[in-house]
Amino acid sequence: MQIAALLYEDFTALDVVGPYEVLSRIPGAEVVFTAVEAGPVRTDMGLSVTAERPLAEVTAPDLVLVPGGPGTQAALGVPALLDWLRAVDPGTAWTTSVCSGSLLLAGAGLLTGRRAASHWLALEHLPLLGAVPSTDRVVLDGKYATAAGVSAGIDLALTLAGRIAGDAVAEAIQLVVEYAPEPPYGTGSVATAPASLVETLRASQLRVPAL
Amino acid sequence: MQIAALLYEDFTALDVVGPYEVLSRIPGAEVVFTAVEAGPVRTDMGLSVTAERPLAEVTAPDLVLVPGGPGTQAALGVPALLDWLRAVDPGTAWTTSVCSGSLLLAGAGLLTGRRAASHWLALEHLPLLGAVPSTDRVVLDGKYATAAGVSAGIDLALTLAGRIAGDAVAEAIQLVVEYAPEPPYGTGSVATAPASLVETLRASQLRVPAL
Repeated sequence: MQIAALLYEDFTALDVVGPYEVLSRIPGAEVVFTAVEAGPVRTDMGLSVTAERPLAEVTAPDLVLVPGGPGTQAALGVPALLDWLRAVDPGTAWTTSVCSGSLLLAGAGLLTGRRAASHWLALEHLPLLGAVPSTDRVVLDGKYATAAGVSAGIDLALTLAGRIAGDAVAEAIQLVVEYAPEPPYGTGSVATAPASLVETLRASQLRVPAL
Repeated sequence: MQIAALLYEDFTALDVVGPYEVLSRIPGAEVVFTAVEAGPVRTDMGLSVTAERPLAEVTAPDLVLVPGGPGTQAALGVPALLDWLRAVDPGTAWTTSVCSGSLLLAGAGLLTGRRAASHWLALEHLPLLGAVPSTDRVVLDGKYATAAGVSAGIDLALTLAGRIAGDAVAEAIQLVVEYAPEPPYGTGSVATAPASLVETLRASQLRVPAL
């Protein structure tokens, strides 16, 4: 099973690395990191990760993983990227995204009329691209699996691992990555965070001010 | 505040990327990825990330972050790496690790007599290096902050963000990365996973068999 993780300038590293850390551990899985051009790709907060192969060489992945991040908007204007998503999607078993990556799937026309998750700040843009926004953390609509922001990709990937390889394998992977989270605060979603914090971050476009 | 993330061959990507995604969002923080030599560093499951600067050029970080992974054992035999940890530690505000990264801190002599977390499969090795193993997910002993396996680095980093920049900043970062986890299984720790699964993974050295 080939898993293609799509990289582009200013994506959010954890959107890819969370799911990769889970999915790469499925027996028989091979992950390929791909971008318009091979080479280092800079993420939004500075880390660079390597795209091993250009999109043109990744033609038949079984699973596509699309991250989000501040670069999503620019990526929506890159025809090579949207064309690739449209070209490979018919052959996938799963087409997936984390965070605002669902905007790219929707922008490629793959989520029309489908329910999809996204980062809470990006959800409102999904209808403009034909998708039906959901505030769920993980949304499966047919083979289209989408996650909420950043860290939600770990939950998505464990869910997919269960569907792909069975619960026993997914349970084992969850223990390998020791995923028994203990978030120190209760502010991980707009449903539980104070409205004032949500508004502060909305106004600042997610830049954390020195509060 | 300079945060130095130490990279070495066969480390586990999420051990670094989880905390990085949190800590890099602290106002005024700068993250530098460093290794014995600058350039791409291959992680255990295939992804390569870029070390921007060699250890020799990172001489006064305020926070050191050491990941774990299958490469930890080999890294324990790299004097340049342990020497660097010993050299920079006196100047740090925080010296931290995720997963089996605590073995490297202990191997450098920095955890002698201190409580430390580690990946559950690595905990038994901590006493051999002078540290006191803890099954807690996040352990703070003075300025030494250690986390359990892989995903526990996110919890560690949010805890540190609160100590460094205050609860309000850490709460904001938790909402930015939408950390309201919903693990699909209850197998994220040895305390909750079936003993048979723990033994299977112990015997296979964490390679997930096609169960």
